Amino acid sequence: MRLPKAERLLPCLTWMRGYAKATFASDLIAALIVTIMLIPQSLAYALLAGLPAETGLYASMLPLVAYALLGTSRTLSVGPVAVVSLMTAAAISEVASQTALQPVAVAILLALLSGVFLVLLGVLRGGFLANFLSHPVVAGFITASGIVIALSQVKHLLGIAAEGDNLPELLHTLAQSIGTVNLPTALLGGGALAFLFWARGGLQALLLKAGLQAPAVSLIGRTAPVLAVVVTTLLAWRLNLQDQGVALVGAIPSGLPVLQLPAFDTTLLGPLLLPALFISIIGYVESVSVGRTLAAKRREKIDPDQELIGLGAANIASAISGGFPVTGGFSRSVVNYDAGALTPAASLLTAVGIALVTLLFTPFLAWLPTATLAATIVVAVLGLVDFAILRQTWNYSRSDFTAVAATIVVTLLWGVEPGVAVGVGASLALHLYKTSRPHIAEVGEIPGTGHFRNIKRHTVETHPGILSLRVDARLYFINASYIEDELIHTLQDRPGLRHVILMCSGVNEIDISALEVLESINARLKEMAIGFHLSEVKGPVMDRLQKTAFLEHLNGSVFLSQQQAVRTLLEQQQPTATGQADSQDFRI
Amino acid sequence: MRLPKAERLLPCLTWMRGYAKATFASDLIAALIVTIMLIPQSLAYALLAGLPAETGLYASMLPLVAYALLGTSRTLSVGPVAVVSLMTAAAISEVASQTALQPVAVAILLALLSGVFLVLLGVLRGGFLANFLSHPVVAGFITASGIVIALSQVKHLLGIAAEGDNLPELLHTLAQSIGTVNLPTALLGGGALAFLFWARGGLQALLLKAGLQAPAVSLIGRTAPVLAVVVTTLLAWRLNLQDQGVALVGAIPSGLPVLQLPAFDTTLLGPLLLPALFISIIGYVESVSVGRTLAAKRREKIDPDQELIGLGAANIASAISGGFPVTGGFSRSVVNYDAGALTPAASLLTAVGIALVTLLFTPFLAWLPTATLAATIVVAVLGLVDFAILRQTWNYSRSDFTAVAATIVVTLLWGVEPGVAVGVGASLALHLYKTSRPHIAEVGEIPGTGHFRNIKRHTVETHPGILSLRVDARLYFINASYIEDELIHTLQDRPGLRHVILMCSGVNEIDISALEVLESINARLKEMAIGFHLSEVKGPVMDRLQKTAFLEHLNGSVFLSQQQAVRTLLEQQQPTATGQADSQDFRI
Repeated sequence: MRLPKAERLLPCLTWMRGYAKATFASDLIAALIVTIMLIPQSLAYALLAGLPAETGLYASMLPLVAYALLGTSRTLSVGPVAVVSLMTAAAISEVASQTALQPVAVAILLALLSGVFLVLLGVLRGGFLANFLSHPVVAGFITASGIVIALSQVKHLLGIAAEGDNLPELLHTLAQSIGTVNLPTALLGGGALAFLFWARGGLQALLLKAGLQAPAVSLIGRTAPVLAVVVTTLLAWRLNLQDQGVALVGAIPSGLPVLQLPAFDTTLLGPLLLPALFISIIGYVESVSVGRTLAAKRREKIDPDQELIGLGAANIASAISGGFPVTGGFSRSVVNYDAGALTPAASLLTAVGIALVTLLFTPFLAWLPTATLAATIVVAVLGLVDFAILRQTWNYSRSDFTAVAATIVVTLLWGVEPGVAVGVGASLALHLYKTSRPHIAEVGEIPGTGHFRNIKRHTVETHPGILSLRVDARLYFINASYIEDELIHTLQDRPGLRHVILMCSGVNEIDISALEVLESINARLKEMAIGFHLSEVKGPVMDRLQKTAFLEHLNGSVFLSQQQAVRTLLEQQQPTATGQADSQDFRI
Repeated sequence: MRLPKAERLLPCLTWMRGYAKATFASDLIAALIVTIMLIPQSLAYALLAGLPAETGLYASMLPLVAYALLGTSRTLSVGPVAVVSLMTAAAISEVASQTALQPVAVAILLALLSGVFLVLLGVLRGGFLANFLSHPVVAGFITASGIVIALSQVKHLLGIAAEGDNLPELLHTLAQSIGTVNLPTALLGGGALAFLFWARGGLQALLLKAGLQAPAVSLIGRTAPVLAVVVTTLLAWRLNLQDQGVALVGAIPSGLPVLQLPAFDTTLLGPLLLPALFISIIGYVESVSVGRTLAAKRREKIDPDQELIGLGAANIASAISGGFPVTGGFSRSVVNYDAGALTPAASLLTAVGIALVTLLFTPFLAWLPTATLAATIVVAVLGLVDFAILRQTWNYSRSDFTAVAATIVVTLLWGVEPGVAVGVGASLALHLYKTSRPHIAEVGEIPGTGHFRNIKRHTVETHPGILSLRVDARLYFINASYIEDELIHTLQDRPGLRHVILMCSGVNEIDISALEVLESINARLKEMAIGFHLSEVKGPVMDRLQKTAFLEHLNGSVFLSQQQAVRTLLEQQQPTATGQADSQDFRI
């Protein structure tokens, strides 16, 4: 069921038509809750990205509007998220050293480039590219990123200096400055951290005991960061903690951002392109996975290609309003969903809420200690850390495990971009390696059943003159010569052999390199006066073989089933089969 | 049948033991013929690589010895070949501009690095990496390289100046200098070219008519370049053509090369590494393909991993004797084979032959016009040009065609390294794209046969409550979400559905991402009160599934065959199946 064209181009039409009052009430409540949650979060992720606090607010207005109009998820909440902010920080420090740009300018250009790239990919319907990042690799990447992020916040919690976007750098610089801890900052940061952990654990248990419903408890837990912000800001103001060396957010320009298209110089493309690509792809994959999860709960669907356009537009919107790269975040979307958001109108209202905060509350936020923001980041990202994926993949398959472990190790040791690159590279390389050495089984009939199975696993019936082999693979250039070598090897030491049957039930395709190999095997068998037959060839494979001279050259026949092949060859009782392939009727 | 260890490490032991007089006679004759053929060829390929003529001779001595001792093909002839020489020329002009090195030094280092890389790859048993270059891509690459090479020789044939390693550059620079043609050079070059073409065509027809055997005729044809060399050298000497502006090979240092390990500075690794990798891989693939072809003719076998070591040693030998990158060549190996070479002793004798020539004949070769060498190159490489691969792949499969066409176009327009890179990249990308959207067929039983086939291709029996789907793919992260989307899509508009059976005959593997998708499909079907069953699961796949909780969660059973699945579910006559997977007996 495809949507009409207008609604495919502008997905908001699907929910704007017939928008009801009751829906509005529900969306408004969700927007209020999300706005409250987003204030500390947006400031914190700006801090994580190494940018002024106001950019976090800017990145939480227009992007929400753009996605609400163009995205296909009804409840996804777009804005600054932890992993993408970490990647932005890494890119900024890299790019700033190569160019004369200020961090804010780099962030804006990263958002712009990511946005343009995502929109282009969406127009070209390239959503499937996101599949290159497998779930285990993404899980490993997020776990490792969570550790790096948490560690990167220790400096704010203790009021010391530290740098780096990977474990060794962070540990090294933290160790160097650990002697300069600022006690008031450490107390404030430690207190906020302890409170936030308690709000996630002990408090929620208490509230549940007190008879509150689980969703309500969860929402109350989510407001804990706001409470921490209010309390520590008041403390900082009344006790004038700035004079004690406690770092504060400081003056935030009040008022809405000025909209302008950033100046772009093509010489910047070189240093910016790769970081922007990584940010877009990771952001997209994370967002689509959140969107899919939420859509499945309400039997809705998201369109991966249109999501590219929605997220791309959100990033462009972020760029022209002075923000930084954004994407659909897990925690913010879950809050939006749990708080009862029914349509993207909730996001539009949230954008209005953030705008009001930016207009009215920034003088108050100037007193906010950065240690509080760091505490909220640490608590949020430690929730992402989950090493279970290592155990799961280890139990299931060593190659899945290898890809995940490589991603985690590289992300921890060298940072986020090498981590993603190695994760994708390792997954693909392992896939290619595995398909390069496919499973080849000699099969025989389970007596009386017509089912042919691996002779090593089942008690089966075979015939000395007939060798039946099942190749479990798409035959293509990567494994063509392996298959040739294996088949030829299998033929040795079989003096009475008259027929070889290749059972093709697992052969999902034959490319032209593999076809050449089959021709060569056929020629060799012909010389040895051994018939070469195929069975259970799939329709699309047969269609293609029929376009070539292979079936004419074939020193044998193509059979509909393996059973038919064996029976026919046994009945023939001839030393070699020379039947022509009558393939028309044998497609399966 | 594996060889004893000593013979695996030193393959020459297999033929040296019991080496007979009769074999020696045969090898000696082959060596004589190959030596005569190699003199113009080795000089010509040095010219093509942009190197002094003697380097061609140097690259035709020690490398033959090294390969004879360590290689596994009995008749492969190793030395300078056209495509690798072109790649060397391209690398030299690239590297020389980045470093202060002379062309000869660059060539030596390229040979050294290629050699070390090949040996390392061989020790790591990485021969399968060569499979990344599919046959069609290699064919396309060689055709395009042949055109570039032929065009690059026009300047020598006409005595004008031209530069470049791709079509646009060559055409542009040729057009600029076409007004400065040197008439004597053009007459000499044109004459040599015409003679060589005639020797390949008309002459051979005449000789065949005169009653000579085809192999003899072919060998006589191969000696034509030597005749051209002798005649044009005498002409140049007697008519003093140098004074007419005809370019000659010039003074060649007489005597054997001094053996020395080249000085290597790690800062050179940057510019040299990539060209050396490309040269090794292309050289290896070409050589193995020639070796396989010849080995098949005599029912011999080559060992792809040991070949890496043999070719690597040949390149290291070339480097320490002042040569340039070498590999097993098609035309030289065919001559060796046709001339009756039985063992690598023929190559050892050829090396001695070339050494004698280097010691005795270099004063004569100084008068050799480069136009003659250019003519031999043009005739040799035009034999490599074959666009049939485009037609073949077009007829067979558009994606094979796309990879070949991309390789040809990029090689012609941008040169050999981008051509190879695009060929490999396009092949892999197309493979991944195709496996990302696998064929999924709804199947039914061909009445009374127990065979289940695509309902769109066959008249089959289906049951309204049961949907049987066959997925023709290895299920892995690249196609996991596509399969989920397709399956969910197929479920829509089937109100009476009670059971879904996934027929897994084509499912050669399930990775952990795909397993997650199956879990999610299972959960969704469970909610909808629809049973989810698997049939014909392959042994290795079942082994892995049994390590997980998937089979416990499965809202249905695993059946040995599709027929059994349908019969059992029809007999149950229950709204939903809740049987436990008794998988032990169902492995196939």
